[in-house]
Amino acid sequence: MGKGRLEAFSDGVIAIIITIMVLELKVPHGADLAALMPLIPVVLSYVLSFVYVGIYWNNHHHMLHAASVIDGYVLWANLHLLFWLSLIPFATGWMGENHFEPVPVALYGLMLFMSSLAYLILERVLVSSNANNSPLVMAVGKDYKGPISSVLYLLAVPLSFVHVWLAFAVYLGVAILWFLPDRRIEKYLQR
Amino acid sequence: MGKGRLEAFSDGVIAIIITIMVLELKVPHGADLAALMPLIPVVLSYVLSFVYVGIYWNNHHHMLHAASVIDGYVLWANLHLLFWLSLIPFATGWMGENHFEPVPVALYGLMLFMSSLAYLILERVLVSSNANNSPLVMAVGKDYKGPISSVLYLLAVPLSFVHVWLAFAVYLGVAILWFLPDRRIEKYLQR
Amino acid sequence: MGKGRLEAFSDGVIAIIITIMVLELKVPHGADLAALMPLIPVVLSYVLSFVYVGIYWNNHHHMLHAASVIDGYVLWANLHLLFWLSLIPFATGWMGENHFEPVPVALYGLMLFMSSLAYLILERVLVSSNANNSPLVMAVGKDYKGPISSVLYLLAVPLSFVHVWLAFAVYLGVAILWFLPDRRIEKYLQR
Amino acid sequence: MGKGRLEAFSDGVIAIIITIMVLELKVPHGADLAALMPLIPVVLSYVLSFVYVGIYWNNHHHMLHAASVIDGYVLWANLHLLFWLSLIPFATGWMGENHFEPVPVALYGLMLFMSSLAYLILERVLVSSNANNSPLVMAVGKDYKGPISSVLYLLAVPLSFVHVWLAFAVYLGVAILWFLPDRRIEKYLQR
Repeated sequence: MGKGRLEAFSDGVIAIIITIMVLELKVPHGADLAALMPLIPVVLSYVLSFVYVGIYWNNHHHMLHAASVIDGYVLWANLHLLFWLSLIPFATGWMGENHFEPVPVALYGLMLFMSSLAYLILERVLVSSNANNSPLVMAVGKDYKGPISSVLYLLAVPLSFVHVWLAFAVYLGVAILWFLPDRRIEKYLQR
Repeated sequence: MGKGRLEAFSDGVIAIIITIMVLELKVPHGADLAALMPLIPVVLSYVLSFVYVGIYWNNHHHMLHAASVIDGYVLWANLHLLFWLSLIPFATGWMGENHFEPVPVALYGLMLFMSSLAYLILERVLVSSNANNSPLVMAVGKDYKGPISSVLYLLAVPLSFVHVWLAFAVYLGVAILWFLPDRRIEKYLQR
Repeated sequence: MGKGRLEAFSDGVIAIIITIMVLELKVPHGADLAALMPLIPVVLSYVLSFVYVGIYWNNHHHMLHAASVIDGYVLWANLHLLFWLSLIPFATGWMGENHFEPVPVALYGLMLFMSSLAYLILERVLVSSNANNSPLVMAVGKDYKGPISSVLYLLAVPLSFVHVWLAFAVYLGVAILWFLPDRRIEKYLQR
Repeated sequence: MGKGRLEAFSDGVIAIIITIMVLELKVPHGADLAALMPLIPVVLSYVLSFVYVGIYWNNHHHMLHAASVIDGYVLWANLHLLFWLSLIPFATGWMGENHFEPVPVALYGLMLFMSSLAYLILERVLVSSNANNSPLVMAVGKDYKGPISSVLYLLAVPLSFVHVWLAFAVYLGVAILWFLPDRRIEKYLQR
């Protein structure tokens, strides 16, 4: 099975996910700055989710670049990841619409957790289907950021009920962890 | 005519179909778990349809991979399949919105039947345009799951009026039939 | 400039156009067949427009396949065509929503006319940028269906006010003219 | 990292951005010409934004065509540009919905300014990652239209409050500056 079409399909789905989130930014009827105020939490949620989906696209790109064998298991593990990513616009919209209430913020964390779990599953499936591909096996073996992020997202779910900004600090922190180029992170972690 | 652009266009349309279904998951105004309850049937319908559209993409991918001649007949048979697939988000939304009432569940079955019929037509058209391509002819010749699924979907339409869960059992059963890797199914059927 | 990215971008836009039309099929609240009745004209408009956009994609595909030089003029002529095609979902929705009232049916014809005009302009621009490419020049030179269709669409605009079904007969007739494989049409016209 | 997937992803996002703007053209309930009247400012905003997004796609295409090294910095600079472009449909819809009131027109200018700034950043990042690629370095070095446009968009923000049509004249003028083939502009500027 060709890798090209899997990449093209994933690119299409991720491009649509990243863009339909903006549809939650409903055009207000008023024409003054006050009419934009209620949209501020919606925009902030959008920025966070845009960065997250961008991170997933970036990592997905790198991981598939290293892979060579694409079989039925890989295809379904990939669709499973796209399924959870496709729920991020809903969780984003709910969180923004309700100005960061605890339940929507917790659900957002749960969706990030499920997405990161689906990504780890895709990693394992790719490794077992590409067992002779040492660069991929090594790259996945060194992936310590993936499991750490999953644990942090899961932790953020109960934290949302302690204080919503604690959960938010986790989401922002993990995003920064992925956003910064790896070398700096690695140096920081080695210290 | 190039196969690449046909695949790219189909990927684009299928990626949009699979993603616009999530737009039916309307962001609720309440911020508690109770606000999510009415969405449960919508989410369940979405999961089922996501799996179905994923199966179609998967099979479409394999079938075109084996094809070599793409003529005007293939192009229109392909657009015909995309047309019926494009109605699945509507049938999914109607079924979820109405918490699995008989008529929407029957319509869902009818849409699955029409999609499967369109797929069988595309198979026949590809075979007649690629008559000298023995791998494709053999692959299509061995497709017993396609016609069986069509009959089962059609059967599910009246079953929806006997009991809605009978139709649902058919949809789930056929999805599992396609989802499981072929080898296991074949072994099971040989027993 | 690469032809690949122009084709990929056009495929993306056309795939979205063909799919967002289905969003006009709003999920009804009722769960019986009666709830679907008001949607019948919307579905009929959708079928017609799906076929039309499919025809444009098909022809666009063939024409660009023959082209070799893609310059700034071609790019803008192509965007101009995509602009008019992007208004077809609106005209389709308006016509379906209003059960084929004269003004929406006339506007639909006008949008088809503008799209066909944009297509003819793209043809001319491609020919002038690919003057040394005799297959393209010949293919465009033999395009008698394009200008005939344009004239018929324009004629359908006033016809909508005489009787709406006259305009509709034109839209259906032209779609069939394009839908049927060329050879049969040519034989029929030679008689 | 492959340039192909970056281009394909950007094409997908830009194709969706250009197409979802048309969703702001809500189908009116009335079936006469009067029902279309309130849509005229929405259509005009759509035309302007369609041209702007088309210009960005065109320039993006050319710039990436010249680039050879795509690293993490380029990827994020590109996502940053896509982020600001993704807000153009919102700004367009707000401006059209409110018939060109000062605040929405100013916000539209701000979004154009942020997009142009993001484009200039992408240019700089590409140059620093492709320092040995003299055609790209030269092409970017000669880009005087980019910074001029940014300054003009920023100027249009206060101008919206003096008179809305002054800001509009800037948006139209800059669009024409980019739309016309470069040679004519260069000749005009040399005089």
